[in-house]
Amino acid sequence: MKKDKAVVLLSGGLDSSTVLFMAKEKYDCTCLIFLYGQKHTREIESAKQIARHAGCKYKLISINLPWKGSSLTDKKTKIPSNKPAEIGKHGVPSTYVPGRNTIFISYAVSLAEAEGAKKIFIGANAVDFSGYPDCRPEYYENFNRLLKAGTRNKNIKIVTPLISKTKSDIVKLGIKYAVPFGLTWSCYRGKNAPCGVCDSCVLRAKGFEEAKKNDPLIKR
Amino acid sequence: MKKDKAVVLLSGGLDSSTVLFMAKEKYDCTCLIFLYGQKHTREIESAKQIARHAGCKYKLISINLPWKGSSLTDKKTKIPSNKPAEIGKHGVPSTYVPGRNTIFISYAVSLAEAEGAKKIFIGANAVDFSGYPDCRPEYYENFNRLLKAGTRNKNIKIVTPLISKTKSDIVKLGIKYAVPFGLTWSCYRGKNAPCGVCDSCVLRAKGFEEAKKNDPLIKR
Repeated sequence: MKKDKAVVLLSGGLDSSTVLFMAKEKYDCTCLIFLYGQKHTREIESAKQIARHAGCKYKLISINLPWKGSSLTDKKTKIPSNKPAEIGKHGVPSTYVPGRNTIFISYAVSLAEAEGAKKIFIGANAVDFSGYPDCRPEYYENFNRLLKAGTRNKNIKIVTPLISKTKSDIVKLGIKYAVPFGLTWSCYRGKNAPCGVCDSCVLRAKGFEEAKKNDPLIKR
Repeated sequence: MKKDKAVVLLSGGLDSSTVLFMAKEKYDCTCLIFLYGQKHTREIESAKQIARHAGCKYKLISINLPWKGSSLTDKKTKIPSNKPAEIGKHGVPSTYVPGRNTIFISYAVSLAEAEGAKKIFIGANAVDFSGYPDCRPEYYENFNRLLKAGTRNKNIKIVTPLISKTKSDIVKLGIKYAVPFGLTWSCYRGKNAPCGVCDSCVLRAKGFEEAKKNDPLIKR
């Protein structure tokens, strides 16, 4: 039987890669990979490799945001280092990119409408996360209501399989679905090796540690 | 007193231009103008002129949608001609661009968050319209709920001052706010003169006729 189509938002990190490998079991997936001025463009190569490894199509979308507002994109603002216990405790961090998930999802909505996909998968997570407002369950619930009201097909739904998982749950899921962790990339600094101290590195390390697994990106 | 900031989605047509002239009375407006592969790129020049005439800043955003799905953007699909009574009666027309308003608004959300704007103005209209699903009031109500849940500032609101106006109401409002109608552009075909038979031309003509006003774009 022919699989239904789905769009998967793929950053090349642990979460979105795991979601892709979960989604491709049931859906004919097209990945959307975004170049939006992030400092860690290295994740783009990871995302492409993950999509190829999963045997899925991908489309690379260039987004030009001619305004500032995030340490993830502004050259003059430093990406913060944090201790694990501090993450998500001090309001929205400077790495938050204004409207980013809304923009990513809006492109996915367009593609889903154009090609008749019924699901949009996103690896948003509201447990072990940095405190980004666009990772909250209410945000996705309201987005789904909006899609029911404001699309031609009315049957497009955003799916967030990781929304209430811990990072350790995600590592375990990734192992179950044979995600090639060595191809993924999480570090916000995007240098040769993970920095180990940005929010994204810290949360990833927490996940592997709690799952009692080794991260293949970390040399021991 | 310093005015609050607002973002205005400006296509250069009758509706969005009227909204800009209404909004600039109370807000310090930045217009967003989008190049998204539309056949009528002529509207971009109109939008820029309208923004300049209004004394407002604007940003031009290029959007590349590498998929088909609309006669407004696909070279191989013809823009339909309709009689006034037929418009909006046969489901969603082929000129609907999948996810377009969601994409436009998502950029506006990003700018509003980055620069601290509190309002996003859009000239959506659910009365004399072509039947686009992303012009329905429920769509905007849910978008506002989403913004409350999923943005840093939580105080950004989409405002649709024309949502329940007729085209004739809009023409009258445009006159009240001194909108330079001669600089606006509505025709989907985007040639030297309005075609007079695309949905956008027909609805515009209906508005001027019912308001008993002359459209300066129509030579008599």
